[in-house]
Amino acid sequence: MTSPSHGGDPEFESQRAHTILFAQEVLKDVLRSIKPDQQETERLAHFVEFITKKVEEIAERLSIELEVMLVGSAARGTWIRGEHDLDLFLAFDPSETRAELELNGIEIGKAVVNEDYSDEEFHCVSYEKEYAEHPYIRATFEDREGSRYEVDIVPCFAVSDPTKIESAVDRTPFHNRYVLSKIRGIEDEVRLLKQFMKGMGVYGSELRRQGFSGYLTELLVIRYGSFLDVIKAAATSWKKGTRIDIESHGRYRGDDPLVVIDPVDPMRNVAAALSLDNLSRFIDGATRFLERPGIEFFFPPPPEEIDEDELREVINERGTRLLFIVFDRPPVVDDILFPQLRRSAQAVVDLLHREGFRMYRGAATWADSEHAVILLELEVSRLPGIKKHTGPPVWSRKHASRFRHKYKESRFGIYIENGRYVVEIKREHTDAKELLNARLREIALGKNLKKAPFAIIDGEEIMGVLKGKEFKVFLRGYFFSHRDCL
Amino acid sequence: MTSPSHGGDPEFESQRAHTILFAQEVLKDVLRSIKPDQQETERLAHFVEFITKKVEEIAERLSIELEVMLVGSAARGTWIRGEHDLDLFLAFDPSETRAELELNGIEIGKAVVNEDYSDEEFHCVSYEKEYAEHPYIRATFEDREGSRYEVDIVPCFAVSDPTKIESAVDRTPFHNRYVLSKIRGIEDEVRLLKQFMKGMGVYGSELRRQGFSGYLTELLVIRYGSFLDVIKAAATSWKKGTRIDIESHGRYRGDDPLVVIDPVDPMRNVAAALSLDNLSRFIDGATRFLERPGIEFFFPPPPEEIDEDELREVINERGTRLLFIVFDRPPVVDDILFPQLRRSAQAVVDLLHREGFRMYRGAATWADSEHAVILLELEVSRLPGIKKHTGPPVWSRKHASRFRHKYKESRFGIYIENGRYVVEIKREHTDAKELLNARLREIALGKNLKKAPFAIIDGEEIMGVLKGKEFKVFLRGYFFSHRDCL
Repeated sequence: MTSPSHGGDPEFESQRAHTILFAQEVLKDVLRSIKPDQQETERLAHFVEFITKKVEEIAERLSIELEVMLVGSAARGTWIRGEHDLDLFLAFDPSETRAELELNGIEIGKAVVNEDYSDEEFHCVSYEKEYAEHPYIRATFEDREGSRYEVDIVPCFAVSDPTKIESAVDRTPFHNRYVLSKIRGIEDEVRLLKQFMKGMGVYGSELRRQGFSGYLTELLVIRYGSFLDVIKAAATSWKKGTRIDIESHGRYRGDDPLVVIDPVDPMRNVAAALSLDNLSRFIDGATRFLERPGIEFFFPPPPEEIDEDELREVINERGTRLLFIVFDRPPVVDDILFPQLRRSAQAVVDLLHREGFRMYRGAATWADSEHAVILLELEVSRLPGIKKHTGPPVWSRKHASRFRHKYKESRFGIYIENGRYVVEIKREHTDAKELLNARLREIALGKNLKKAPFAIIDGEEIMGVLKGKEFKVFLRGYFFSHRDCL
Repeated sequence: MTSPSHGGDPEFESQRAHTILFAQEVLKDVLRSIKPDQQETERLAHFVEFITKKVEEIAERLSIELEVMLVGSAARGTWIRGEHDLDLFLAFDPSETRAELELNGIEIGKAVVNEDYSDEEFHCVSYEKEYAEHPYIRATFEDREGSRYEVDIVPCFAVSDPTKIESAVDRTPFHNRYVLSKIRGIEDEVRLLKQFMKGMGVYGSELRRQGFSGYLTELLVIRYGSFLDVIKAAATSWKKGTRIDIESHGRYRGDDPLVVIDPVDPMRNVAAALSLDNLSRFIDGATRFLERPGIEFFFPPPPEEIDEDELREVINERGTRLLFIVFDRPPVVDDILFPQLRRSAQAVVDLLHREGFRMYRGAATWADSEHAVILLELEVSRLPGIKKHTGPPVWSRKHASRFRHKYKESRFGIYIENGRYVVEIKREHTDAKELLNARLREIALGKNLKKAPFAIIDGEEIMGVLKGKEFKVFLRGYFFSHRDCL
């Protein structure tokens, strides 16, 4: 690949070639850490055979007709060493109802986890019922050496065409077939890209994360051919609004930050969940990697926690006001919670602006199993006791007269500014915390957060309320941007 | 006059008629106070005759050819009782040079004031040299009863046509002739309108005041026929942008708040000096007068001063921050000072906004013979120790890379917001007063103010610096809007 602007500069070209060579050394190192060895690959294949056969037997025993199908990274050979997350899909005939599918899916899932494994090579150590578009069973198995395998047993419809799907999971088998047809020989490139994105903190399309999905990384490698070529494309040509359409059939009209048309569905953007800032972080990371390749992009040092002294110092130095809205976490999964939490944060920011307060940065959100938090950093959090109330132009007759009579007792009188009447009215809440305590319930908050008890915590007092390591890592990351620029 | 919307409502019409009758009673009362009696009229005529003859004699003695001409309200019979401000114009042949005109004008003016009046009915008690478009002499005469007459002796060119004027004063004789040809019989209506505007605080077209000139009041009465008809027009149909063109010949293109085409010059707006807020105050006053006529519109109670306790209380109650920029007044007249003071105030407001502070109201200006003051009332006058510095989008390659390298040592790191790099940089001045002390000299201030020493005074400390009654009246008026709404 030659750069149009430096094509004629031999020194630049030589330096560039040197950097690429060095990058390739780095990638070899990384691959040594993330590529499963032969033994691991064989054991996983063995488990897949075992569990597929088990599910087929149980289905036959229960007289339920279906096809068992391994999908996801295990099926495609793109998983990362030590990550044994298997997606086992139960494909039902589309003539069944959704209710039958859900019932049968759960019945088989439960039978699988409750089976007697005492004489078997693998046994089930725990399971949970999870909810996505359908309910499904997530089970953890262990072999005799103690290696673990997490299996999601997910029912879907075996539709004939991806445009006939009833829910998103029905599309997955098509993704699986598409990727399998293209990925042979470049699986390691996918592993590198996933690990790089993990290092950047932009891997995972869950609504909490808003990053790149596994399928998206596979498509990018299919499109560009290798990890380095994806990185070069991102660093030199991607921007907000970039469109990638491998099959040149896209009919998607959205203006998402990045559009990657699904090869199996021209109406779908595979990157719909990706936020602008995560796209930007990836472009930024790719650019910096090409400038100075290094293993730390894939394996950054573990993020640090903030402690009370450092928080006090940071607050003092910034001089902004930190307010934390701490909700008791409602009993919903992250994919339900985070959209609500973000919408609520936006409503809070809008309220603060409407009332004349000023944010320093956009609100940040965080949650663990007990709490859901909106972090607000304000530039202006205290305001005068009065606010200007601007009325109609004096020449608007009826309105003017009504305004004049309504405010005739106004403490500071009525004055005229830019041709309009103005009065000073009392500001009900001069402090942002006071305002939030009084009005948080009124403003649009999500269905579950609406009823959740909350408290508003001021500045460093948060350290007495949220004491977990994860929160302290989040808070330090907020101030010191560890994820963004290494 | 019937109102289109209430024409059919007998109760409304009867109430309206009653209000108009009452208004007419009020106007009679007002006129009793402001119309000169016969004795005063005769004495003024007598003085005019005396001073005109005196100037003519002196001109002849000095062999200077000119025509002496009384213009202004005394010439038109529209002056208010007790106000004996005479404009005596010396009309020179336009073939003379401007330098000759100025020399001869001053020579005659000085001869007039230095004459020996020991045996005369009137004598000169004092005089000053003033500067407008030309230098001129302002003299004060007294008669034997102690009545005073102030005479401006102003040189001008006797041009043949108002389009051929060399300076604004050359136009005045044309104004005089025009008004004299139309004003017979409605002089008292002009007196009422002037007094009403004085009561509102909107009379006077000096640059400090930005109100209605005497000539403008005369034109309004000529256009509408009477005081009450001017008031009705203002209350029911005037607004920002209203155009009045008595001679239907206007070719003026400006978008001033009010446009009144000069009957003697189609290219000129007689109301060019009128500010939007003074136009609005007049419309507001006219509307309120028609709702409830009263003598207090013409003779409002004298404005009150603020004292230290009240100021403290007001500052406390408003919770805003008051900053006063107090300049030593440069030795220039108000018409030079005030435009500079206002431009400076705007530059200060722009600086404060640029740096993130927030005004509560627009800056106000005030001056006396010693000080020139800009009053700033801030809603936000203290800010955090850091400010956000937003860089280029991460995908802008060259710019992005430059920004990243420039700020790589940034205390809080570089983060990404809306696709752009952002860093926190130290805010140099966290307090508005500090900022102004440091940067006032840099920003565009007028020619004379630029070099004037200044101090920035915080809140109630101003009472120790500006102790005069006028300032205290101004300050109380600022808070309590006494001028604006009675």
